[in-house]
Amino acid sequence: MNIPISSDPRVVIIGGGFAGISLARELSGTEVQVVLLDKHNYHNFQPLLYQVSTGGLEPDSIAYPIRKVLQEYPNFFFRLAEVAQIDTDNNIIHTNIGDLSYDYLVVATGSKTNFFGNERIATNSMAMKTIPQALNLRSLILENFEQALLTDNLPKRDALMNFVIVGGGPTGVELAGALAEIKKGILPKDYPDLDTRRVQIHLVQGGDRILPGMSTVASEKAEMFLEKLGVEIWKNTRVTDYDGKLAKTKGEIHFETATLIWAAGVTGALVAGLDNEKITVRGSRLKVDAYNRVEGVANVFAIGDIACMQTEDYPHGHAMMAQPAMQQGRHLGKNLLRIISQKPLLPFTYKDKGTMATIGRNKAVVDMKGMRFQGVFAWFIWMFVHLYFLIGFRNRVVVFVNWVYNYIRFDREARLIIRPYKRDYSAFED
Amino acid sequence: MNIPISSDPRVVIIGGGFAGISLARELSGTEVQVVLLDKHNYHNFQPLLYQVSTGGLEPDSIAYPIRKVLQEYPNFFFRLAEVAQIDTDNNIIHTNIGDLSYDYLVVATGSKTNFFGNERIATNSMAMKTIPQALNLRSLILENFEQALLTDNLPKRDALMNFVIVGGGPTGVELAGALAEIKKGILPKDYPDLDTRRVQIHLVQGGDRILPGMSTVASEKAEMFLEKLGVEIWKNTRVTDYDGKLAKTKGEIHFETATLIWAAGVTGALVAGLDNEKITVRGSRLKVDAYNRVEGVANVFAIGDIACMQTEDYPHGHAMMAQPAMQQGRHLGKNLLRIISQKPLLPFTYKDKGTMATIGRNKAVVDMKGMRFQGVFAWFIWMFVHLYFLIGFRNRVVVFVNWVYNYIRFDREARLIIRPYKRDYSAFED
Repeated sequence: MNIPISSDPRVVIIGGGFAGISLARELSGTEVQVVLLDKHNYHNFQPLLYQVSTGGLEPDSIAYPIRKVLQEYPNFFFRLAEVAQIDTDNNIIHTNIGDLSYDYLVVATGSKTNFFGNERIATNSMAMKTIPQALNLRSLILENFEQALLTDNLPKRDALMNFVIVGGGPTGVELAGALAEIKKGILPKDYPDLDTRRVQIHLVQGGDRILPGMSTVASEKAEMFLEKLGVEIWKNTRVTDYDGKLAKTKGEIHFETATLIWAAGVTGALVAGLDNEKITVRGSRLKVDAYNRVEGVANVFAIGDIACMQTEDYPHGHAMMAQPAMQQGRHLGKNLLRIISQKPLLPFTYKDKGTMATIGRNKAVVDMKGMRFQGVFAWFIWMFVHLYFLIGFRNRVVVFVNWVYNYIRFDREARLIIRPYKRDYSAFED
Repeated sequence: MNIPISSDPRVVIIGGGFAGISLARELSGTEVQVVLLDKHNYHNFQPLLYQVSTGGLEPDSIAYPIRKVLQEYPNFFFRLAEVAQIDTDNNIIHTNIGDLSYDYLVVATGSKTNFFGNERIATNSMAMKTIPQALNLRSLILENFEQALLTDNLPKRDALMNFVIVGGGPTGVELAGALAEIKKGILPKDYPDLDTRRVQIHLVQGGDRILPGMSTVASEKAEMFLEKLGVEIWKNTRVTDYDGKLAKTKGEIHFETATLIWAAGVTGALVAGLDNEKITVRGSRLKVDAYNRVEGVANVFAIGDIACMQTEDYPHGHAMMAQPAMQQGRHLGKNLLRIISQKPLLPFTYKDKGTMATIGRNKAVVDMKGMRFQGVFAWFIWMFVHLYFLIGFRNRVVVFVNWVYNYIRFDREARLIIRPYKRDYSAFED
């Protein structure tokens, strides 16, 4: 790989998500050479992916060119690359664009959708972890309604207008709310010749409450908001199979649907060479110590979703969300500079700034240190926090313009089938 | 096809471009049933496609859901469909979603890229007539630079950074200007480890001036503006072959390039059943009379690019651009209502509102009735005319925000490889 040879120590970061970007920024303008690798040329603001799926925002509003984040600093190098294998014995990584040696390697590969080994669900369901996946879902939702217009067979039409979301975490909850708003505000106008009151949105949760990572009052309120919007919530229900037409659960409930969205869990996106059982824990995450060092491997660190730092307060590691990733990235940046200047390392401590989820057009639930909000005020907090964390001034303005417009007009104009998803509808009889 | 049966006469419009949408709007709220068919679910503002290709705007800024344009009027029906064959004997059209009868059929299928029968160029070059094509070009431009980073072979690197645009009409000129701005404002920052001064932008024109549809002063000024930006202009030069690596011309000039953009001409997008030689003229357009009736076929009309209305002032028909299309659409709407109320038809007369093209960041050339502008003032006219003709308030605000930002910051943030183009680079040796 064509990276200039430098006398400065080289830090190689795999992954340009919240963790990798935060680390890279922390190392800006310092005496290290930073090489960031990602298989995409953009950083992706994952918390708003569901708005891309539902036509509320376009990808460029929540994606940001990685080269632009780093372009001011001469010690940064970005390469569009997929990592094939890490060779920790020789401090080298192998990628699809060549090999690269490192002094310090930081694994910030994040997580991917966890289908818990169910191949049929993996094949037939829609995931929503990347921008292409979110765009596929957007196309499919729109294509379903165009298809529904073409059939007189009521069960088929219902299956096309039936959306089953598996997983009651923030992703599932926010997507269910957005779909419910579309049902109410857009479908009756866009499809006057369809009985869109028959559209169903099911949210299926394995546990006994939605938003299990939040307070019980947040869960209860979120449930109430969703039910008011017409979302059907199924708790203590696990989807065990989906053949592209019928979603089966452990119990007696079955859903006939053309669209199953799988938001039921994530698993660490491991890299070959660092995937042996000794260093991984449950959920395929890399076990790290309080300094984000991967246990037992010299000069290799892990941050963000892929890292599992088991502490007294967080026995299963931190939540796989943006905040721990950003904090670990920044903290590791400081520690790497301490290593280089031969100072002792500082242990990572997580500052919990709270969690939040939005439900529909103007409701949210927010848990913050000592404070909990639900409803419209919470939604304002949600909105400004998300605008604040978006990268880039233009993105913020464009997102804000879209939100104001969508709010006032009850609309989502990015309902465009630009790349058809081309689902096979042949299992549904006319 | 599931269209409600109505006692009102049914007007079927094929194509939701400028012509089809203008006609549909004109027929809004009248006593006809309007069925609009398009293979996309959006209307596409073609004059700004080059900004999508070059990362200046996202697709949703220049695309608009067709269902939304028409959603207020109960006499409108939209279907996402591809027309396979028109049966004028039985007043029926065959589509991929079923058959549909019509009382009046309006062909507004527009135009497609004309490769003049050269299959090798068609296979290896990039066209820019649709949003997916514009996005493919965006991906390819960015991928080329990522590839250029990986090679030490100078001829290969140059070929990757070499852009050849064939066709000196508005599309070619505007694209060349945008690429030149990217070379100047973005590449040196995004690719500090590439010698981006070696990036070349060639504009190849068959005739003896660029913008041949405009005044000679506009052509001359546009040429000057482009040359100032570093674009190489080749006049009286025709590209005759391109194998994906080497573009050959009739003369001695050859270009080694990974990217040939073909903007050298368009041809009518004919539909089977209306493609016989009797009713088409040069450029595969349908010959229409002064009332946009396709000659010799009852109850079939054509408007926009696909229609060729030969008059004394326009012996080869009107220009294949937005203005004639919109004016014909509106005029035919009035005439269809006159047919139904048994009034005599009114002949179409084109009101030439002028033509314009923008060059780079803040220059344009504008020809208007009796007035000609070039430079910065012309660019302001260009900008406000384009904002005015965009559909939708949100689109206008978002485009305006992007333009202001791009102008002030010298930037284009939608440089995202969301769907890789996956070009085969194997012909270029390392």
